[in-house]
Amino acid sequence: MKNKIIYKYVGKVLIVFAFLLLAPIIITMVYKENPIPFIIPLLLSLLSGIFLNLLKNEKGSIYAKDGFIIVSLSWIFISLLGALPFWINGDASFIDSLFESVSGLTTTGASVFTDVENLNKSILFWRSYSHFIGGMGVLAFVMAIIPLSKNDKSMHVLKAEMAGPSVAKLVPSIKKTLLYLYSIYIGLTLTEFVLLLIGKMSFFESLVISMSTAATGGFSILNSSIATYGTYNQIVIAIFMFLFGVNFNIYFLILMKDAKTALKSEELRVYVSIYILSVLMILLNTYQMFSSMSNAITSSFFHVGAIMTSTGFSIGDINIYPTSCRILFLCLMLVSACAGSTCGGFKISRLIICLKKIKRDLLKVIHPNSVHTITFEGKKVDEETVNSTCTFLFLYAFFIVIIMGIVSFDNVTLSQTINAVFATFGNTSMCFEISNFSIFNDISTIVMTIGMLLGRLEIFPLLVLFSDLKK
Amino acid sequence: MKNKIIYKYVGKVLIVFAFLLLAPIIITMVYKENPIPFIIPLLLSLLSGIFLNLLKNEKGSIYAKDGFIIVSLSWIFISLLGALPFWINGDASFIDSLFESVSGLTTTGASVFTDVENLNKSILFWRSYSHFIGGMGVLAFVMAIIPLSKNDKSMHVLKAEMAGPSVAKLVPSIKKTLLYLYSIYIGLTLTEFVLLLIGKMSFFESLVISMSTAATGGFSILNSSIATYGTYNQIVIAIFMFLFGVNFNIYFLILMKDAKTALKSEELRVYVSIYILSVLMILLNTYQMFSSMSNAITSSFFHVGAIMTSTGFSIGDINIYPTSCRILFLCLMLVSACAGSTCGGFKISRLIICLKKIKRDLLKVIHPNSVHTITFEGKKVDEETVNSTCTFLFLYAFFIVIIMGIVSFDNVTLSQTINAVFATFGNTSMCFEISNFSIFNDISTIVMTIGMLLGRLEIFPLLVLFSDLKK
Repeated sequence: MKNKIIYKYVGKVLIVFAFLLLAPIIITMVYKENPIPFIIPLLLSLLSGIFLNLLKNEKGSIYAKDGFIIVSLSWIFISLLGALPFWINGDASFIDSLFESVSGLTTTGASVFTDVENLNKSILFWRSYSHFIGGMGVLAFVMAIIPLSKNDKSMHVLKAEMAGPSVAKLVPSIKKTLLYLYSIYIGLTLTEFVLLLIGKMSFFESLVISMSTAATGGFSILNSSIATYGTYNQIVIAIFMFLFGVNFNIYFLILMKDAKTALKSEELRVYVSIYILSVLMILLNTYQMFSSMSNAITSSFFHVGAIMTSTGFSIGDINIYPTSCRILFLCLMLVSACAGSTCGGFKISRLIICLKKIKRDLLKVIHPNSVHTITFEGKKVDEETVNSTCTFLFLYAFFIVIIMGIVSFDNVTLSQTINAVFATFGNTSMCFEISNFSIFNDISTIVMTIGMLLGRLEIFPLLVLFSDLKK
Repeated sequence: MKNKIIYKYVGKVLIVFAFLLLAPIIITMVYKENPIPFIIPLLLSLLSGIFLNLLKNEKGSIYAKDGFIIVSLSWIFISLLGALPFWINGDASFIDSLFESVSGLTTTGASVFTDVENLNKSILFWRSYSHFIGGMGVLAFVMAIIPLSKNDKSMHVLKAEMAGPSVAKLVPSIKKTLLYLYSIYIGLTLTEFVLLLIGKMSFFESLVISMSTAATGGFSILNSSIATYGTYNQIVIAIFMFLFGVNFNIYFLILMKDAKTALKSEELRVYVSIYILSVLMILLNTYQMFSSMSNAITSSFFHVGAIMTSTGFSIGDINIYPTSCRILFLCLMLVSACAGSTCGGFKISRLIICLKKIKRDLLKVIHPNSVHTITFEGKKVDEETVNSTCTFLFLYAFFIVIIMGIVSFDNVTLSQTINAVFATFGNTSMCFEISNFSIFNDISTIVMTIGMLLGRLEIFPLLVLFSDLKK
């Protein structure tokens, strides 16, 4: 890490994180709970942030590599700080606390707690709030803090966080872009919050569940997840899960009154098509298990959304699903939803590019003399992007295999291994045959924790950090 | 299929196949069994071959596309003809017979027969003999028949069959290349045959098992596979499985007294390394289950070979293996051994290129201004090859997912689905939790039959044929 400017940005992120920790402290005051588990990480975050900020500050440009390192370090520090509340409160061992913290921040939603109803209100709030913080990314803080400059190299940082091959620069300045994205994020969350209040959920429940939905996280405050909240609320949550799976640029375009362009989006159309087809397939396979057709439809719509957007909420026992549904769910976990959303997985945009590449290369064999180009969202995709999409997908597969290999030494079946690794690496959390992640030993827990981070940060940043540390 | 020359070549292949069917007819005479099940396909093959040969014959060049179509059509016709003995003999339904035939020709070795010991000797011979025929490829016949010409376009056909990104043109003419490859194939098979005879196996058993090993097929004549043949024979078979997993070019180089170049082969070294590491890993995980260390070593060595070379023989209950071993075995099935061997999977050469691509692209991010090239076997790999390797691997994954999706509708668990599809698509046959492929319904059987062909022909040829038929 030769570029000292890295420390400065990480420091700024930690200061912002310290301020964010004020929210759970307010919750402890409201519910008369112990604020110490939050005050300690707040102080640590604030002091180390100030310290890093005071380090000798060289002016310099930020390159993609530096951006990757800032993002990685920020996530790692915040994950460690975010684990402290669980650990100090005595809810879990440090390794389990770290898993829960990373699961929260990466918007995975996989939990080591067997009985969440027994946790403090502030801890329950912290879990969903960490989803909300992670949802738009620590990076976003970095971006908001980076002073506006003509040097657009900082856009590279965004590339690491905003999934998918292309980040549309919708507005001239990054600060403005972030402002718009945040407004959409918070606006949608508040809308869901109000709709859940109307559905007679308590203030606290509505708040927590809205934050978990917005981030496509999945932490809930009941052991039965969303099962007892009634059909109206389930449908509201299902709709919002779907909405948070859409590329935020679409909403931006709609706000700019350019709905026509927005609705033409290729990724959006593929997303909606996969969604509908999956719901139909699950429905056809399971409707006979339900007491009424409307229950069957709600369940299919809800669970396809929960898995495809990587949220992981459930409204019933998912182990009833037959093998065909499980294979579909595993595929949906792998791909997840649109780039530029809060979802996990490798994103529909990459799937589209990959499939178009296959088609192009087949055409090359059949018609060797004609020229074939790959287009996405109406624009030609350059070979560099196709190339790095391939590399990304291989890396994705490679790490899934490695992590499965390590987890398989635990006392688990083949299905459990595959399910657990897909659920964590894809940041989904929903898992067949596993009621809870406390069944795993420490090594599996650590490896899956790393997996969640790798999946969330889209692998490259952590590899760059690692290769930098080796030097 | 505008190019009429295609019919001519397919016709020639069928005529050769007719002659090959004389061998099982001799077996029926030796064991006084009914020769009709073989005479009918012989006549059908001969007559249709002659008919196709008589079709108006335009002189023309053969392009890659035509080569793909010749290979695909030849395999499909021969698979259908090869199913007739089982069906006429009343051993299985036509769909199951076709599965068994394709399983034989593609050197998969997955069987629908619950009790192979009950089958006729001629049928048992036919199963292993079909491995042997398929092993070096129907294409090889095509190649031997194609008159030597200066037009090297016919090399394209070989590309479809000889796995891996590069087919070394070791000798100037294709006919000579094939002659050498065949000599090595038959030479190694005969050596194993003699060694098994020395191990007191009967003439028939030695013959059949040698053919199954040579092709890395896996059909045996006992329900217990290789378990009862004694340690000496098991070790002989294990060694020959390993040898048939090596690229045949290596043997050619050794015959040309250039062992130095041969042993420098990158793919060979990676093959041997993976082999040894896998044996050690399996041994560490299972030695405590065996009565003696020597048994444990034999078992590990044998089963790693059986799976990695896609042979699929077994010398004991493979369901004893814990999850960690199963994950490793699934990975080995997927990759298999060297290009230019009789193995299945997507081949080590492609794995190497894929990993080198990942490494190159990571270096690009870390050092954006330096130039990085991919080399394999000491030579620079051009971007076109890297590109088509990516496409191939995506297609491989894509079809595995599609086939798993369809098979999952059968009455099977997630593990069974994954195991069965990996075992058929990778042409391995070894399967946890599945004693026998008769448990699958007709749709699954048909889809896995297509999967075996896709895996064996490396996908592209069948897709080209399909796109050509659509026109």
